[in-house]
Amino acid sequence: MGHYLNRIKKPNDIKKIPADKYPELAKEIRQYLIKTVSDTGGHLASNLGTVELTIALHACLNLPEDKIIWDVGHQSYVHKILSGRKEQLKNLRQFGGISGFPKEEESECDAYDTGHSTTSISVAAGYSRARDINGEKYKVVAVIGDGSLSGGMAYEAINNLTGYKTNTIIILNDNEMSISRNVGGMARYLEKIRTNTKYLDFKGDVENVLTKTDFGTKVADRLKKTKNSIRDLITPGEYFKDMGLGYFGPVDGHNINDLIRAVEAAKTYKGAVLVHVLTTKGKGYKYAESNPSKFHGIEPFDAATGELRAAPAKESYTSVFGRVLCDIAEEDVRITAITAAMAGGTGLLDFQSRFPKRFFDVGIAEEHAVTFAGGMAAAGMHPVVCIYSTFLQRAYDQILHDVCLTRKNVIFAIDRAGIVGNDGKTHQGIYDIAFLSTIPGLTVISPKDGAELVQALYFAKDFEGPIAVRYPRGEAYFSGIDEEPIRYGKSELISKGKSLAIISLGAIFKETAEAAQLLENDDISVTFVNARFSSPMDTEMLDSLMGHGMIAVVEEGTSSGGFGEHVAAFLAGNGYKGKFLSVSLPDVYVEHGTRAELAHKYGIDAEGIYNSLLKKYREPEN
Amino acid sequence: MGHYLNRIKKPNDIKKIPADKYPELAKEIRQYLIKTVSDTGGHLASNLGTVELTIALHACLNLPEDKIIWDVGHQSYVHKILSGRKEQLKNLRQFGGISGFPKEEESECDAYDTGHSTTSISVAAGYSRARDINGEKYKVVAVIGDGSLSGGMAYEAINNLTGYKTNTIIILNDNEMSISRNVGGMARYLEKIRTNTKYLDFKGDVENVLTKTDFGTKVADRLKKTKNSIRDLITPGEYFKDMGLGYFGPVDGHNINDLIRAVEAAKTYKGAVLVHVLTTKGKGYKYAESNPSKFHGIEPFDAATGELRAAPAKESYTSVFGRVLCDIAEEDVRITAITAAMAGGTGLLDFQSRFPKRFFDVGIAEEHAVTFAGGMAAAGMHPVVCIYSTFLQRAYDQILHDVCLTRKNVIFAIDRAGIVGNDGKTHQGIYDIAFLSTIPGLTVISPKDGAELVQALYFAKDFEGPIAVRYPRGEAYFSGIDEEPIRYGKSELISKGKSLAIISLGAIFKETAEAAQLLENDDISVTFVNARFSSPMDTEMLDSLMGHGMIAVVEEGTSSGGFGEHVAAFLAGNGYKGKFLSVSLPDVYVEHGTRAELAHKYGIDAEGIYNSLLKKYREPEN
Repeated sequence: MGHYLNRIKKPNDIKKIPADKYPELAKEIRQYLIKTVSDTGGHLASNLGTVELTIALHACLNLPEDKIIWDVGHQSYVHKILSGRKEQLKNLRQFGGISGFPKEEESECDAYDTGHSTTSISVAAGYSRARDINGEKYKVVAVIGDGSLSGGMAYEAINNLTGYKTNTIIILNDNEMSISRNVGGMARYLEKIRTNTKYLDFKGDVENVLTKTDFGTKVADRLKKTKNSIRDLITPGEYFKDMGLGYFGPVDGHNINDLIRAVEAAKTYKGAVLVHVLTTKGKGYKYAESNPSKFHGIEPFDAATGELRAAPAKESYTSVFGRVLCDIAEEDVRITAITAAMAGGTGLLDFQSRFPKRFFDVGIAEEHAVTFAGGMAAAGMHPVVCIYSTFLQRAYDQILHDVCLTRKNVIFAIDRAGIVGNDGKTHQGIYDIAFLSTIPGLTVISPKDGAELVQALYFAKDFEGPIAVRYPRGEAYFSGIDEEPIRYGKSELISKGKSLAIISLGAIFKETAEAAQLLENDDISVTFVNARFSSPMDTEMLDSLMGHGMIAVVEEGTSSGGFGEHVAAFLAGNGYKGKFLSVSLPDVYVEHGTRAELAHKYGIDAEGIYNSLLKKYREPEN
Repeated sequence: MGHYLNRIKKPNDIKKIPADKYPELAKEIRQYLIKTVSDTGGHLASNLGTVELTIALHACLNLPEDKIIWDVGHQSYVHKILSGRKEQLKNLRQFGGISGFPKEEESECDAYDTGHSTTSISVAAGYSRARDINGEKYKVVAVIGDGSLSGGMAYEAINNLTGYKTNTIIILNDNEMSISRNVGGMARYLEKIRTNTKYLDFKGDVENVLTKTDFGTKVADRLKKTKNSIRDLITPGEYFKDMGLGYFGPVDGHNINDLIRAVEAAKTYKGAVLVHVLTTKGKGYKYAESNPSKFHGIEPFDAATGELRAAPAKESYTSVFGRVLCDIAEEDVRITAITAAMAGGTGLLDFQSRFPKRFFDVGIAEEHAVTFAGGMAAAGMHPVVCIYSTFLQRAYDQILHDVCLTRKNVIFAIDRAGIVGNDGKTHQGIYDIAFLSTIPGLTVISPKDGAELVQALYFAKDFEGPIAVRYPRGEAYFSGIDEEPIRYGKSELISKGKSLAIISLGAIFKETAEAAQLLENDDISVTFVNARFSSPMDTEMLDSLMGHGMIAVVEEGTSSGGFGEHVAAFLAGNGYKGKFLSVSLPDVYVEHGTRAELAHKYGIDAEGIYNSLLKKYREPEN
C-alpha cells in the first residue's frame, strides 16, 4: 500500500503523479485513512466521501497561494495528507499530535481554522475581497457540506458575496447528510436535483459556466447548436442563480476526471460560482457506507470488522439525559425536544421515535433553534433545546433577547459542557458558565453527578422561566451521596468543616471530592459544598462560609467571567477577609487531547486541585 | 382628525368600520402618527409605510387569538393604535410610557417581544408547531422587512418551516430598504421582481394560492381558461418556492382591498406561504418619503417642516469615530470598514464615499460580518467591524471562534455601548463588557472621552491581534485632561489619594469624576483611575491600590461578569483586606427612557455614584 501515496511529501507533489493514476492514489488514501483512523479515532466517513474531491482540488490549485476553506473542517484529513502531513496523521487528535481540523499553525496550506459549521463562505468572501483590493489573483475555494447549508451564515455570506463581482468558488459537497440525514426545505430542494437530474454532461452542458469567458463563449455557441435542452438541465441550480451565484452541476463526486474539469471550469468563472458535487459519505469502506452516522466521528475501531475496539462506556451523561427526558415527556405533554442536527449526539434518538410529533430537528441552525423554542413556549409548550455547549455560543443573543427577556419557559439541555477532548480548541465547552451568567434571569444548574442530573431535569420541568442544565461528555459518575432535593438557587452542603471551604460546581465534583479527601488527610478541616446553581448564586451559603480562613471555588470552565469570579465579587463586596482561590481553566483556547491529559495539564484533575488548594492554604498571609 | 380613528378603543374595533372607509382611516392614522411621533420621536418612516398593511391584518385576523409577530418591531405603532393603544402612543418611548417595540406586557395583542432583526419567522414557526400539536386553529403571521431577509436566521427559519406542513403566513414587507438601501443578492432578486412584474392581478392570478383549497381549485380552474400566462406572472416567486414556501405577489402595499384579498387568500393556504407586499417607506408624508433614512428613527421634529426641533448634538462619539477612521484609512491602506446595514448609524458615510472599495455593507448579518472580517484579516487586511453593542451579541461565537482563536487583526468598533435610551430593553448596550471578557485573547478598550477615543483608534490600528474599542451613544465629552499615551493593558492614573480608590471604566468617567470631586469635598482622599482596558486588566495598577481602605469600580454595564467582578476576583485572590464596591447596572433588562432618567434610576449618574460610594465608605467594618 502506498506506491503513489508515498510520493507525496509536500504540497503540490500530487502534480508529479500522472492524472490517470489518481484513482489508484484515491484507493491508497482510503486504505491509509481507514488504517490510521481505526487507530486514532476521528471523522472517518466524511473524509472517505471527499477523497476524489480533495485530489481534484489539489490537482487544480496551487497551494498555499490558492486558499481552500474547509467548512467545519473535519473532512480535511485527505487535504492534510496531500499537503504533506501523512505521517503526522498517525497522531491525529492525540495530545501533542495534529488536530482533526484545519489549523493555520500546522501548515501554510490550512488557510483558516474551522470547527463550527457554516463559516467557510464568509471566510472565502473575506479572502476574495481582500485579494481584489490588493490586485492579487489567487483562487479562493470554500468547501461546504449540504448539512452546513442549513446554517443561516451560509446564506448571509452568499447574499453578500453575490452583491459583489468577485471570483469565488463554492464547492457544495452534497452527501444528503450532516451527521444524520438532513432536514428542511433546502434538503428537499437538493433531493429534487439529485433525483430529477442526471450528472452534468461535460460534452454538452457547460454553457452556464463557460459563456462568462471569451473562450467559453465560443465553446458554448458551438455546443448550443447540438443541444437544445441545456436550460432544462441547468434548471436545478435556479435557486442559487436567483441568489446571484453561478451554478455548475451536479457533478459525480467520485469521478476524478469530472471533478477536475468542474474545478478547472469554475476557476475561469467571473464572479461567485457554486459547484454542486454529489458524494457518498463513507465511500469505499462498506461499514461506513452502510452506517455513515456511526463513522461520522468514531473512537478507535477494528478495521476488519468495523467494530469499536473498546466496549462502549457505561451510561453516559447524554444517555441519562435522553432516558429521563422520555420519562418527563411521558408525564408532561407540553415537553418538546429541539435539536440542531444532533439527535444522536444529544441523546434524543429514543425521544424521536417515541414522541415524533414533539421532536424537532431544525438543521444546523442553533440561532433558529432557540428562538423557535421561544415561540413554542409563548404558545404554551415547554421546549427543551438540546445543544452542545460550544455550539450554543452561536445563540447567545437569541437566549438573551428572544427567551430570557420575557422569561419564556425554555429548558436548555447543554451537553458537552467542560473539556470535550479530541476535537480541541474549537469545540471545548468551557465558556458557557461565563457567557450564560451575563444573561439576566437565566437560571443555570450544573449537577454534580448522574443522579443529580436526573433531579435537575425534573426540577427544570416544573420550573417557570428559562433554565439551563449543563453536563459533560462521557460516562456518568454516580457519587452515591444521598441527594438533598434541589431547591431554587440553593447549594448542597456535603460536609461541614472549619478552615477551608471548597465550593465545587458541576461534574468536576468527583475530582474535587478526591482533592477534599486528600486535604482532610492532611488534617485540614474542609467544608465541602456542591454549588448546583451558578446563576443565581447561593448568597446565603456564601454568607455562612465567611468564617473560614480560606474559600475556594472549583469549576471546569474559563476563569474570566466564571463562577469563581462571581463568588469572589460577592465575598469582596461583603467584607470577607480570608484567602480566596478560584481553580478553573486559564483564559486560553484549550487544545486537543483526552480529558484526562488536558485536566492534568491545566491542573483540574484531583491532584492538580489538591496541589493548588494546599499551596494557597499554606501560603503565608500578606 | 380622527372620525374613524376615534372609534377604535380596543382590539377588533376596526371591524365595526365599513371596509370602504379604511382608506380614510388610513389617512387619519397617518396624521396621528406624524403628529405624535413629531412630539415623542420614534420610528416614523417604517410605520407610515405599513399603515394599509396593518389595517388589512387587523381587518382579516382575530386578535389576540391570531398571532402577529413583527420583525424588529419598530413598525408596530399602527398595530398598537388598532389594538387600543392610541392614547398611550402619546407617551411612546418615554420613561414610564409605552415601548416603541411590541411588548407582551403591554398588550395581549403583542404576541412576542421583538427588537433585534430577523427573529419573526423563527417565532412564528414555534407558534405554528405548538398550535398544531395542541390541535388549535389560530393564524400565525410574521411580518418581516426585506432588510431583515439579509439575516441568516430568516433563512434558517424558512428552511425549517418548509420541512413541515404547517400553516404560517409570512408577509414580506418589501420597501427596498433596511435603514439605508438594501444590498446583496437577495436585494437584487427582489429588485428584479419589482421591476419586471406587475402587481398580482386578483381577477386572474390566484391559482398559485387557491388551488391548495377546495374552493380555490374551482376558482382557479375557471381562471385558467381565461389566462395562459399565470406561470409567467408567478415566476418571481420561484426562489421562495424552491425553498418550499407558497408565494403570492407582489401586492400593492398601499391598496387596502388588494391587501385584504391577499391576506384572506393566505389564510386558506395549506402550508407556509409568503405574501410579497411592496410598500413605500415614509408613505404619505413628503419629508419622510423623500428621506426615509432620516425618518427611520428620528428625534422630535416640526411636523410642518420636517426639521428637527432641537439643534443636532455637537460632535458625537460616532462622528469622532467616523472622522478618525477616515484619517487612519488615509494612512494605512490595509484598513477596511464593515457594517451590517448601519453605515449611517455607525458613522461610516464619509468613509463610504472616500474609500468605496474598502467599504463593505454586508446587510443585517452580524455573524457574517465578523467572520468575513476574519477572512479579510487572514488575507492581510486590517478590517474594522462597526456594529452596535447590542447587535454584536449576535456574533459572540464568530468573535470567539473565527477571529480570536487565531488572533486575527480585526478591530471591533462598538458603538452604542452602555445605556442607549429610548429603544429600551432589547437595545441596551450593557452586556458587551461582560460577554467580551469571556473570550480569550480579545483586548477591550473603553475610552474615557472623545479625545481618548481618538487615541484608542490609533492604538488599535497599530495593534497586532483582535481588539475592541467601545464607546457610547450621544455627544462626545472631552474631559480636557491631558492624555497619557495609551499603553497595552495599562490604566491611567488621574489623581493620587490615600483612602478610597475609584476605578472608572469608559465614558462614565465624566459622572465618576464628578462623584470623585464631591467625595474630595467631603474630605475623603481619593485615588482616581481611568481603567481604559477591561481586558486585559491592569493588575500592576490593582496591586498598587491594595493599601487603600476601599476600592470601587464604576462601569456602565451589567454587574454579572462585568469589569467590577474581574477586579474583585483579583483583589480577593491576592489578599486585599479592604472594602470593595462595584457600581454597575443590576442584572435586569433596562427599560426605555432617556439616558439621564435611566442613569438616575439605576444609580449611575454622578449623584448615584457619589451616594453609593459614600455609603459604603462610611459603613462600619464588619
